[in-house]
Amino acid sequence: MRDGRRETAPDVLTVEEPLEIRVTAGAGGERVTVPLCVTMHTPGHDFDLAAGFLFGEGIVANREDIARIGLAPDVLDDEERANTVQVDLRDGLAFDFERLRRNFTATSACGVCGKASLDTLVHEGCRPLKSMARIHGDVLVSLPSAMTAAQGGFAHTGGVHACALFTTDGRLLTLREDVGRHNALDKLVGSHLLAGDLAALEASAVMLSGRASYELLQKALRARIPIVASVGAPSSLAVEIARTFDVTLAGFVKPSGFNVYAGGGRIDG
Amino acid sequence: MRDGRRETAPDVLTVEEPLEIRVTAGAGGERVTVPLCVTMHTPGHDFDLAAGFLFGEGIVANREDIARIGLAPDVLDDEERANTVQVDLRDGLAFDFERLRRNFTATSACGVCGKASLDTLVHEGCRPLKSMARIHGDVLVSLPSAMTAAQGGFAHTGGVHACALFTTDGRLLTLREDVGRHNALDKLVGSHLLAGDLAALEASAVMLSGRASYELLQKALRARIPIVASVGAPSSLAVEIARTFDVTLAGFVKPSGFNVYAGGGRIDG
Repeated sequence: MRDGRRETAPDVLTVEEPLEIRVTAGAGGERVTVPLCVTMHTPGHDFDLAAGFLFGEGIVANREDIARIGLAPDVLDDEERANTVQVDLRDGLAFDFERLRRNFTATSACGVCGKASLDTLVHEGCRPLKSMARIHGDVLVSLPSAMTAAQGGFAHTGGVHACALFTTDGRLLTLREDVGRHNALDKLVGSHLLAGDLAALEASAVMLSGRASYELLQKALRARIPIVASVGAPSSLAVEIARTFDVTLAGFVKPSGFNVYAGGGRIDG
Repeated sequence: MRDGRRETAPDVLTVEEPLEIRVTAGAGGERVTVPLCVTMHTPGHDFDLAAGFLFGEGIVANREDIARIGLAPDVLDDEERANTVQVDLRDGLAFDFERLRRNFTATSACGVCGKASLDTLVHEGCRPLKSMARIHGDVLVSLPSAMTAAQGGFAHTGGVHACALFTTDGRLLTLREDVGRHNALDKLVGSHLLAGDLAALEASAVMLSGRASYELLQKALRARIPIVASVGAPSSLAVEIARTFDVTLAGFVKPSGFNVYAGGGRIDG
């Protein structure tokens, strides 16, 4: 319906489908495969997504922790196999499925308030970033359009989120898209993990197409990305994470400028 | 940073905090309280959120299924108690915590593809909507601005999602906001559940501030809301749900028009 007139036309939709992530763990002959989660996602870079998700949950720390990643070999239906990624952890890697299940469903041991959420991150080993990375304001304002240009026409459907890793002089390193914002960042981190190049994250800036939430800052922090820029607004807890752990956080990034909520010392100009 | 000049100014952030939902269930003297989930949320209308979440998960079907809803009485810290909602189910109401835990974490019994996701909804009792509700295109295009106006200035922070229920002649019934899109819809549905007025949902249109995903369409379907309108794009699976269950789904709704992806028969003009 346009200006009161009806017309019929094809439209392009972002694909959303379930993805099951399975983990095989154990030592020696004692290995078991367990379904870890089902998440909605946009197909593409599914191994990156699984690897990044496991990294974000603290299950794997680097490429060596993953012995094999692939489609589940025992799923017979083609369509279902395409949506089932199995990650074989290296022999003997500790994997506490019960703890994870508690994390996903039940109470936080540290309590439920903003302060407790930050304490949980410290408890899980997160420390303030010491990165010496710096970025010029002129580079920062160029990132949204650079990301959109790299997405191609599909960005204009408006249905897909993106995140992109840039060097501090504005060169695009990695771009990932997904119907879910968290998935897009998991894919990006996972791609560097699988490439054995997590170090690239620690000297770079990540551009997010949406808003900056607690969960996105938590993922960036775990990946030790020092500069996080978002097209939209940050939440209160996202700002608290950034300030506590010295992550540079810029919001409402557009050609005319941006807001800086934490870590302004890394921004020149 | 604006046009290359630095300035320091206060900014308003959307509050994001954890919320724990606990459920007390059982029959007679055999009642237990279990933590069900921790979700990030924006404080406000927390009882609506808990009730709507339990409704969306199929745990409660109406107001009578909830004996009491309130802050957890045994949490001593004030800040934590404010973020812990306890829902006492009516005596004897069936509550399968293990099934829920499986739902949250592990595999879908029906498989992982778009078709299987729809089958799961049928399996869980979802049926096509038979609603005779109709809305005029002129009313539909007015809903985004009516919602934003009702939000007040806070909408302009850009950090909060909203959803609003309207009669088919454009009168605002209920508005709820949250940092999370799903929470905003849970709050809206939960408010009608607690008011004993789920019937209002079945004759109305809901306006969503963001995009329309599988999960949002699933929640709308369970609440039997016949008309779903979103400011943004729908995903492929959202459109499939809408077509399968005869939910009217409009996307990219703005003053000049909108796209209709399913259920166009309910739109006049």
